Amino acid sequence: MATVNKNYLRLQGSYLFSRIGEKVRNFQSENPDKKVIRLGIGDVTRPIAPAIITALHSAVDEMGQESSFKGYAPDLGYEFLRNAIAENDFKARGCDISPDEIFVSDGAKGDCSNIQEIFGSDNKIAVCDPVYPVYVDSNVMAGRTGEYDDITEGYKDVIYMPCTRENGFAPDLPSQVPDLIYLCFPNNPTGAVITKERLQEWVDYARKNGSIILYDAAYESFITEEGIPHSIYECEGAKECAIEFRSFSKTAGFTGLRLGFTVIPKELTAGGEKLWPLWARRHGTKYNGAPYIIQKAGEACYSQEGRAQIKEQVAYYLENAKYIYDGLKSAGYEVYGGVNAPYIWLRTPGNMTSWEFFDQLLEKVNVVGTPGSGFGPHGEHYFRLTAFGSRENTIEAIERIRNI
Amino acid sequence: MATVNKNYLRLQGSYLFSRIGEKVRNFQSENPDKKVIRLGIGDVTRPIAPAIITALHSAVDEMGQESSFKGYAPDLGYEFLRNAIAENDFKARGCDISPDEIFVSDGAKGDCSNIQEIFGSDNKIAVCDPVYPVYVDSNVMAGRTGEYDDITEGYKDVIYMPCTRENGFAPDLPSQVPDLIYLCFPNNPTGAVITKERLQEWVDYARKNGSIILYDAAYESFITEEGIPHSIYECEGAKECAIEFRSFSKTAGFTGLRLGFTVIPKELTAGGEKLWPLWARRHGTKYNGAPYIIQKAGEACYSQEGRAQIKEQVAYYLENAKYIYDGLKSAGYEVYGGVNAPYIWLRTPGNMTSWEFFDQLLEKVNVVGTPGSGFGPHGEHYFRLTAFGSRENTIEAIERIRNI
Repeated sequence: MATVNKNYLRLQGSYLFSRIGEKVRNFQSENPDKKVIRLGIGDVTRPIAPAIITALHSAVDEMGQESSFKGYAPDLGYEFLRNAIAENDFKARGCDISPDEIFVSDGAKGDCSNIQEIFGSDNKIAVCDPVYPVYVDSNVMAGRTGEYDDITEGYKDVIYMPCTRENGFAPDLPSQVPDLIYLCFPNNPTGAVITKERLQEWVDYARKNGSIILYDAAYESFITEEGIPHSIYECEGAKECAIEFRSFSKTAGFTGLRLGFTVIPKELTAGGEKLWPLWARRHGTKYNGAPYIIQKAGEACYSQEGRAQIKEQVAYYLENAKYIYDGLKSAGYEVYGGVNAPYIWLRTPGNMTSWEFFDQLLEKVNVVGTPGSGFGPHGEHYFRLTAFGSRENTIEAIERIRNI
Repeated sequence: MATVNKNYLRLQGSYLFSRIGEKVRNFQSENPDKKVIRLGIGDVTRPIAPAIITALHSAVDEMGQESSFKGYAPDLGYEFLRNAIAENDFKARGCDISPDEIFVSDGAKGDCSNIQEIFGSDNKIAVCDPVYPVYVDSNVMAGRTGEYDDITEGYKDVIYMPCTRENGFAPDLPSQVPDLIYLCFPNNPTGAVITKERLQEWVDYARKNGSIILYDAAYESFITEEGIPHSIYECEGAKECAIEFRSFSKTAGFTGLRLGFTVIPKELTAGGEKLWPLWARRHGTKYNGAPYIIQKAGEACYSQEGRAQIKEQVAYYLENAKYIYDGLKSAGYEVYGGVNAPYIWLRTPGNMTSWEFFDQLLEKVNVVGTPGSGFGPHGEHYFRLTAFGSRENTIEAIERIRNI
C-alpha cells in the first residue's frame, strides 16, 4: 500500500504566505468596501521595464517563426545569459565565477528549497532565526530537522542562530558546528546586512569545519552602502565553501516572470565529492530550463538601457523603504532595515504578539504586513513591511498606521 | 562536515539525453561540414501557433503597464487556465475533475520527478521497461531504488514491468504488488497505447491493493484511434487511485515555453492521508508558479482559433510519424508506434545493440535517434525515432536510413 512522506506531517501550519493570503481573502470578502493595502508578501508592483518588454516581444516573435523557434533550453541555461551574469554580477565585482558555474533557473525559491537534495540526509542545518521559511520547510520535508518542539517553537535537530537587535540581526558563529549554513544578506525578513569582514569570518569558519554556506543574495541590488558584499565570492576562499542564489524577482520585478540562478563553483566539494556534477544531474533530470523568452528578458537586464531602468526601479522601492522607515520612526516605532533592503523590520508596539499586530493592522487600518513570528521564534514581537508597494499606497499605509 | 546525498552516486551514467547531446556535439565539431538530422530528443520544431503568439504579445504588454502588471501567480495557477483545462481536457471527456484539483506547473518533467517526494521513502515503485528515465532516476535520488545491479541492468528494489513486442508494449499486471505504479500512455518511448478496458484493469488492481498510479498523459493529443483513453479519469474509480500529468510541450509545442499541470483529486489518499494537501504544500513551498505570460499562452490553446492551429500542428507531426513508419517498414524494418504517438519504435537490424545502431546512424548517415537501451534493459535492440522534425528533415532522414 502506498503511504505518504511522513516528514510532511511535521510541517507546522500552512506555508506562511498562504496563511496570510487566506486571512486577507476572508477579510476582504467580509468587507468588500474596504481598500486593503498589501505590504505583506514581498511582491513587486512596478511594471516590467521598457527595455525588457521590448526584449520579450522580440523573443516572442522569434518563437513564432520556424527559423528562430527555440525548443528545450540548454541544461544550464542559454550561454548569452550565463555570459552576461558572469561578466556583470561577478567579474565586474572581482569575483572569479565562470559562465559554466552558473545554473539558470525559474527563481531562487525553487533553488533554495531544492539545493538540500544533493546533501546527505544526516547533514545538520543552521538557519538564522527569524528566517525565510523555505529553508527550514524544505529540510523538514526531507526529514533533516527532527520533530517540532512546541516549547522552543523549533525543530529539534536544527541549529537556530538568533538574530536580535543586540547582534544587529546578524547571527554569531554557532558553537555547535553545522554542516549546512543558510545565510541571506541583505536579509529577509530583517533587512539587515553583513559587512565583508563579518562575512569573511563565516567563510573562514565554514572552510575550517568543512561546512557549506548556502548564501541567498536575492536582495543584493538593494545594497546602497559601501563595504557590504554583493556576493559571497567577494570573500577569500568562498569558492571552496559556498553556493550562492540569485534572483531577478526583486532586482528587475520578475516575480511574475520567474528567473534566477545558482552558482556552484567547479572546485566546491562536500565530504570529498564535487557538488557541481550532482547539481548538474539534478538540473538535467528534474528541470527543463527557464523559457527562452524569459531568459532573453533576463539578458535585457544587463543592457545599458535595461540596467538604467531597473536601477531606477530599485531606487523607487528604496524611497518607499525610507518613507516607511522615517514615518514609523517619527511615530515612535522601533524600526530596522530599509537602507540596504526592501524590508522594514519593526518592533510591535506594547509587546503585542506579531499575529495580534497583524490582525490589528488588517482589521483596523486594512494594511497587510507579515508577522515576524512567522519567520521563527526570535521574530516574535516583530513585524515586516515591504517597500514593494506603489508610492501612493505606501504613503497611505504609513499614514493609516500612524493614526491607529 | 557536509556530505553529499549518496543516492546520487548510484545513478548510472549521465542523463540519457545529455549523453546523446554530448555525442552529437563531438561528432559535429569533428565533422563541421555534415548536416546532422536530429530525430533523437523529443523536441518539437514547429513554431508556436499564431493565436498563441498573439496571446503572448498581449500578456507581455500587460506586464509592461502598472495597471495590468502581474507579480507572483496564485499557488495552483491562474483560475482562467485551470478553468479552461477542467472544461476542455476533462469535463468535455466526461471526467469529473474540478479546477481546484489542477496544479499548473512549468512542465511534466518536473512534476513527474517531484511527485515521488510526497510518498514514503520505503514505497516500492514499478515502472515499464523500457521507460522515460526520469521516473527511475528521481527515485534513485530519493533512495527508493536500492543498488544498481549490473547483471539485470536495473535497480534491485524496483519492479520492472517488461514491455515487449509479445505484450504489445503494454505491461502485464505485476505479481509483486507495487506501491507506486508509473504508467505512460501514449507511451514514451514505444509509442504504444492502452485501451480503456486494459487501463480499467490497472485502476481496479491499484484500488484493490492500495497502490497509486502515476499516469503520464503528456502525449494524449496524439491519440487518433477510438477506444483509447485520453485521461485515466475516464476509468471508473480512478479518482481514488491515480494522479495524472499533462504537458503543453508536445500538444502545442511548448518545450521552450514550459507549461504543464498535475491533477490530484481531492479524495485521493495514500495510507489514509490525503495527497492533495501534501502536493499543495510542496507547490507552495518549493515553487513559485509558471510565468503569467506563459499561462496566458496556455489559455490561448483552448480558444477556437488556438485549438484549430495546434490540432494542425499535431497532424503535421503525425504525418511525419506515418512517413517514418511506412518508410522504414517498406525498407524491411520491424516498426511499432507512430499511430497514436509521435514516437516510432523500431527493432535494430541484424541484432545490433541500440548504441551500435545509434553510432552507425550518426556516423554513416548523420541521423540522431535514441538508443532503446537508454530507456531500460528491455529497450535493448530497439531504437526510438521522433516525428518532431521538420517534414523536409524527416523525409531526408528516412531516405538516408533506407540507403544505409
